[in-house]
Amino acid sequence: MQIITDPTAMQRISEDLRMKHQLIAVVMTMGALHEGHISLVREAKKQAGTVILTIFVNPSQFGPSEDFHRYPRPFDKDAAMAKSAGVDYLFAPEPDLIYPEGFQTSVATGSVAERFEGALRPGHFNGVATVVLKLMMLTRPHLAIFGQKDAQQLAVLRTMVRDLNLNVRILEAPIIREHDGLAVSSRNMYLSTSQRELAPLLYKTLTETAARLAENSENYKEILDASKERLSSIPAMNVEYLAIVDRDTFVETRPDNDPCRCLLIGAVRLGGTRLLDNVQLPPRKTAEDGGA
Amino acid sequence: MQIITDPTAMQRISEDLRMKHQLIAVVMTMGALHEGHISLVREAKKQAGTVILTIFVNPSQFGPSEDFHRYPRPFDKDAAMAKSAGVDYLFAPEPDLIYPEGFQTSVATGSVAERFEGALRPGHFNGVATVVLKLMMLTRPHLAIFGQKDAQQLAVLRTMVRDLNLNVRILEAPIIREHDGLAVSSRNMYLSTSQRELAPLLYKTLTETAARLAENSENYKEILDASKERLSSIPAMNVEYLAIVDRDTFVETRPDNDPCRCLLIGAVRLGGTRLLDNVQLPPRKTAEDGGA
Repeated sequence: MQIITDPTAMQRISEDLRMKHQLIAVVMTMGALHEGHISLVREAKKQAGTVILTIFVNPSQFGPSEDFHRYPRPFDKDAAMAKSAGVDYLFAPEPDLIYPEGFQTSVATGSVAERFEGALRPGHFNGVATVVLKLMMLTRPHLAIFGQKDAQQLAVLRTMVRDLNLNVRILEAPIIREHDGLAVSSRNMYLSTSQRELAPLLYKTLTETAARLAENSENYKEILDASKERLSSIPAMNVEYLAIVDRDTFVETRPDNDPCRCLLIGAVRLGGTRLLDNVQLPPRKTAEDGGA
Repeated sequence: MQIITDPTAMQRISEDLRMKHQLIAVVMTMGALHEGHISLVREAKKQAGTVILTIFVNPSQFGPSEDFHRYPRPFDKDAAMAKSAGVDYLFAPEPDLIYPEGFQTSVATGSVAERFEGALRPGHFNGVATVVLKLMMLTRPHLAIFGQKDAQQLAVLRTMVRDLNLNVRILEAPIIREHDGLAVSSRNMYLSTSQRELAPLLYKTLTETAARLAENSENYKEILDASKERLSSIPAMNVEYLAIVDRDTFVETRPDNDPCRCLLIGAVRLGGTRLLDNVQLPPRKTAEDGGA
């Protein structure tokens, strides 16, 4: 595995690989690698001859009161994990080389980025889209693999790739979970022992809510409200949203729409730590399927 | 010359050309081709084995009260001119294929796009930058050639290419002028006979002002004011700006800065038609050069 820190060198290497008809897959991360990231690398290796992993804690996607400075940066451990997962190139540029003096051009995302995470974290998705575009230009991938955990990010990036004709195939990989269901995330390490015990309740609520919706999709509002109330009744937990959205547009939708490309998404705050998760809603049960 | 209207087909052809180690130059236009555009094609042919000319009247760079609908679209004449100039691929996509339903992602330009044209035409440079990025992704050029007439556009695009790591070399080509000095422009055809007679006064004023500044750069404010007043005294002419700017940042600057990468830029309105022009200011005369 080759470690590259210079953007120009990365771009030259990836353009050369392309000219040699190598298929390039990229996995973009902020480091603090975990089993979720490694699952993306494994999928990348199945799909492409060359796998580039990027590690960049992108300042422009953090709000002023967020955790940019304390975000974990265990570079040596990350590099060892990347190497043993079979990464070919680890691209870890310095912020000054990604945002040099005078930097001023960015990607402006649209309506898919306005709600939920976009509303709670102003500027977040523009920061994500800008750095992903830059990293795509530097690594020149044929495909880029992202986890389904950041479902709205996936929708924003699919929209950007389509709108700006970037000609990169976006693959999504399933959420990796701890034994108790908690979605794996670099930020889980912020949780105290007692918070960590409560954390799986988000996923538990999502799966239970999805089961209820599958039985009785017409009363989806009441079901969502009851679930929200149940989560909110836990003293340490602050529910930010629990909603059914179209997975492409992130517009709130009814689960009995046919066809339903629906996600049940949720975000809670446990102390200072935000947890995100989502589950896919099954296609609607129709009368012909033997439903009531 | 091959005419292509489908963006996906264009992208496939340009990616294939790249894989065959063909050097690609692109000249982006809104059609209504004139000698200025043809000079860009000639330069492109010197620089690259394959020349793509794009014709796209981009709705997103026109303001609501601007001339999008009446902008000339003489496609057959343009195609004939392109062919005889030696263009290899003429890419002329339909607006619906460039901005399909749901399109929402754009490029947000920064401070270089705020003043002058950016201030007078809100949203113009974001529209330009977005379509240029898209056309670059579709034509995958090694180099793109733009005219110096739209000097602020050049500065905006250079900034975008640098900031977003687009890896396209931007070349600039000198302004082509009519026999009386008027910069060639597709919009000159809007001028009435009497307006056309007055139009060369913009360039005349710019060259005279540049000569005065070369002699006496310390009094640049007075010299600019006098020139503005002279142009404004012509009843049909409305001076929008006359200024000395850094050619990269478009920040107003002193012509006696050392080194001076200065442009003298001007814009006037003649009836409903805007005329833009600029001249480069010579490097500062220093005492060592034999100046006073």
